[in-house]
Amino acid sequence: MSENMTIPYKIYLSESEIPAAWYNVRADMKNKPAPLLNPGTGKPMTAEELGGVFCEELVKQELDNDTAFIEIPTEIREFYKMYRPAPLVRAYCLEKYLDTPAHIYYKFEGNNTSGSHKLNSAIAQAYYAKKQGLKGVTTETGAGQWGTALSMACAYLGLDCKVYMVKVSYEQKPFRREVMRTYGASVVPSPSDTTEVGRKILAEFPGTGGSLGCAISEAVEVATTNPGYRYVLGSVLNQVLLHQSVIGLEAKTALDKYGVKPDLIIGCAGGGSNLGGLIAPFMGEKLRGEADYRIIAVEPASCPSFTRGKFAYDFCDTGMICPLAKMYTLGSSFIPSPNHAGGLRFHGMSTVLSQLYHDGLMEARAVEQTAVFEAAELFARVEGILPAPESSHAIRVALDEAIKCKETGEEKNILFGLTGTGYFDLVAYQKFNDGVMDDYIPTDADLEKGFAGLPKIPG
Amino acid sequence: MSENMTIPYKIYLSESEIPAAWYNVRADMKNKPAPLLNPGTGKPMTAEELGGVFCEELVKQELDNDTAFIEIPTEIREFYKMYRPAPLVRAYCLEKYLDTPAHIYYKFEGNNTSGSHKLNSAIAQAYYAKKQGLKGVTTETGAGQWGTALSMACAYLGLDCKVYMVKVSYEQKPFRREVMRTYGASVVPSPSDTTEVGRKILAEFPGTGGSLGCAISEAVEVATTNPGYRYVLGSVLNQVLLHQSVIGLEAKTALDKYGVKPDLIIGCAGGGSNLGGLIAPFMGEKLRGEADYRIIAVEPASCPSFTRGKFAYDFCDTGMICPLAKMYTLGSSFIPSPNHAGGLRFHGMSTVLSQLYHDGLMEARAVEQTAVFEAAELFARVEGILPAPESSHAIRVALDEAIKCKETGEEKNILFGLTGTGYFDLVAYQKFNDGVMDDYIPTDADLEKGFAGLPKIPG
Repeated sequence: MSENMTIPYKIYLSESEIPAAWYNVRADMKNKPAPLLNPGTGKPMTAEELGGVFCEELVKQELDNDTAFIEIPTEIREFYKMYRPAPLVRAYCLEKYLDTPAHIYYKFEGNNTSGSHKLNSAIAQAYYAKKQGLKGVTTETGAGQWGTALSMACAYLGLDCKVYMVKVSYEQKPFRREVMRTYGASVVPSPSDTTEVGRKILAEFPGTGGSLGCAISEAVEVATTNPGYRYVLGSVLNQVLLHQSVIGLEAKTALDKYGVKPDLIIGCAGGGSNLGGLIAPFMGEKLRGEADYRIIAVEPASCPSFTRGKFAYDFCDTGMICPLAKMYTLGSSFIPSPNHAGGLRFHGMSTVLSQLYHDGLMEARAVEQTAVFEAAELFARVEGILPAPESSHAIRVALDEAIKCKETGEEKNILFGLTGTGYFDLVAYQKFNDGVMDDYIPTDADLEKGFAGLPKIPG
Repeated sequence: MSENMTIPYKIYLSESEIPAAWYNVRADMKNKPAPLLNPGTGKPMTAEELGGVFCEELVKQELDNDTAFIEIPTEIREFYKMYRPAPLVRAYCLEKYLDTPAHIYYKFEGNNTSGSHKLNSAIAQAYYAKKQGLKGVTTETGAGQWGTALSMACAYLGLDCKVYMVKVSYEQKPFRREVMRTYGASVVPSPSDTTEVGRKILAEFPGTGGSLGCAISEAVEVATTNPGYRYVLGSVLNQVLLHQSVIGLEAKTALDKYGVKPDLIIGCAGGGSNLGGLIAPFMGEKLRGEADYRIIAVEPASCPSFTRGKFAYDFCDTGMICPLAKMYTLGSSFIPSPNHAGGLRFHGMSTVLSQLYHDGLMEARAVEQTAVFEAAELFARVEGILPAPESSHAIRVALDEAIKCKETGEEKNILFGLTGTGYFDLVAYQKFNDGVMDDYIPTDADLEKGFAGLPKIPG
């Protein structure tokens, strides 16, 4: 960095610097992510098959492993201007508190009503649905961030929006439901008796709090059995990582302005949308051999798909009606313990990130939730932002790495993704404040049960 | 505005443009706000008397009717950098939706964890308490925004923080309480049995949901009976309006950059802190005869201190232990109906704003809550931000005025204050979504009861 440039607390790009194109990291991958397979035939899903579930344009994006830059339509860029560019924050207060020589930066995606980065893909998916002349979309939501984001996008475009919300979140987060309703969405706790797959799951596990996998099955069933509807998904898919590349592109532009090169990039990983978006342009440079970055995916110890899962073809949903994806997975029947508080509950992981991890291009680390909330509380008090539990996984590792720098004296540049705010996670914070939060780590036997359900590929 | 300058969706000033001094509108007022009186003697409160309740430096600011600009200490400016400058937003989407020739701008103060502008004064008051070597501060909070803001400021500075929270909010907004606890504050529902005045109020009104007036009495009692503590207040006081002038100063700097002069400035008014801050530099120009602006204070029809109150000396608290302030008031015993949902529950109004209103320098308008939530929902869907019910009072009138412009064809510039977000007001939104929200307007007889309790000034 040039000596005479002071880095502000928050680097805001101008609206004209919002990326004009998404970056598709698959174009630079030597080993492409494995294709989605038709569970019946074991053959790669065709655009036609996928078109029954997803919008046409999104299917194209899903299957496109070659185009590096895909133009962002003007209408989406206009919507982005309502809440983007998102600030890149230099964590001066945290550095001072930790007394670390490390320089800590975070890309803050929480300054919008959905409270997270999810809006970046929600508006894109809703836009293409609208453009295709559809009546509405269906989806699932866990912590509720994705559902809120989609409700906002649909309200803006005048699309109908049906959200299947994981029951445990529906009950613990009634206020998220009300935000979605305020934006005109209909919200159903999942598993529900409104779908065939929901009724089946309820019959088998009457007391279940649900899972993202169940809710996906229900939303897909509704989309494929109601004319004029398609299904949209907030994470995992290639198209979602593509849309989320705006996070990384903006972060890189902001850092480049000040000549800062991150040594370490840290993001939380559930399905992988935030992490995939944050690292995209950096990973691109790494894949093209132009630069090197250490990249760490952080996941909950209670749902450890990267660190303890298998790299195998699996269903994305519990109902086993979705295509098979090759990914790090705990098995589609794996449901994290109910005392797992904050998001990142999905049993699998983006196929793109799975391939990159498999190829040794990134690391993964699992953290326990008490340690995560300790990091969250410290961050809230020192940096003034109450973080989402999901984001706090990344904070935990950023703190650990900054403390290491203090020990070694290294002046590393640490960049992490602060995906969202914790304003709707106060039930979990209350548990932590009351000292009744505990950690849960599945046993090997727990995991074996999930692995036992991995599908055999036909053919 | 010069023709070649496009106004962005959000105008962000740089951190160096955060005001270096607060602007004290009292310096430019010909008719100064009436002094606080000692309720026992009827004489103006001295600095020494006030010093038993408030920090020394804040007493100076409270009594200073002459200094136009008061320097903001570096430490406070550093804290401001964590969440300021706040954006000035051009409401392009709303203008398009309304098809109005009006240009609508709003100063958005909700992008911080306290969710409102309250943090601007909280950090200032906590800073002066810390500088004076105090152990901690006590306060009251209604909707919880002020308590959250103060908790954040105290956590940052390492001060103890005791918050008396209006019982109805404590119960309806448990999550606000948890945010405060996460920031290390202790939170007590008011009226409580922890103070003499609280026990007295409970004995007289056993089922009361409390009021800001009660909570103030309790917090003041604790501050004045515990060594090392002082009381701080989130609104009403001159010092608070002074600190909040950063809102207006930033808004004016941003508008000046684009050569925009607001024709109409609209803000919600409870105790007056946001409105007083927003209008400060504009009112200054008006008082000095340099420019003219139409200014509208918006208050709830259920707590109409400007539009139906009396301009008289009254207690700021229900317990009648605070000094007397000359203000538009409904009487310190007035408690809004429990079906009044969103903030702005204080029976009185800033003495500064009361004097300005009395002198015909601003207007006031009362709006009913169903109409307020209709405006809130529309704003959320079109502009993408879920507004606080308080802020939505200003939105309501901004919409009404923009619609008038459509009828008359006038291309007015409308500026309003969007004081905060509604993420912790979902109980009220749920009522609205369920269609069970109703309006409440006190009868003249209701108001007479409050006026009957107005104090007689001794001497």
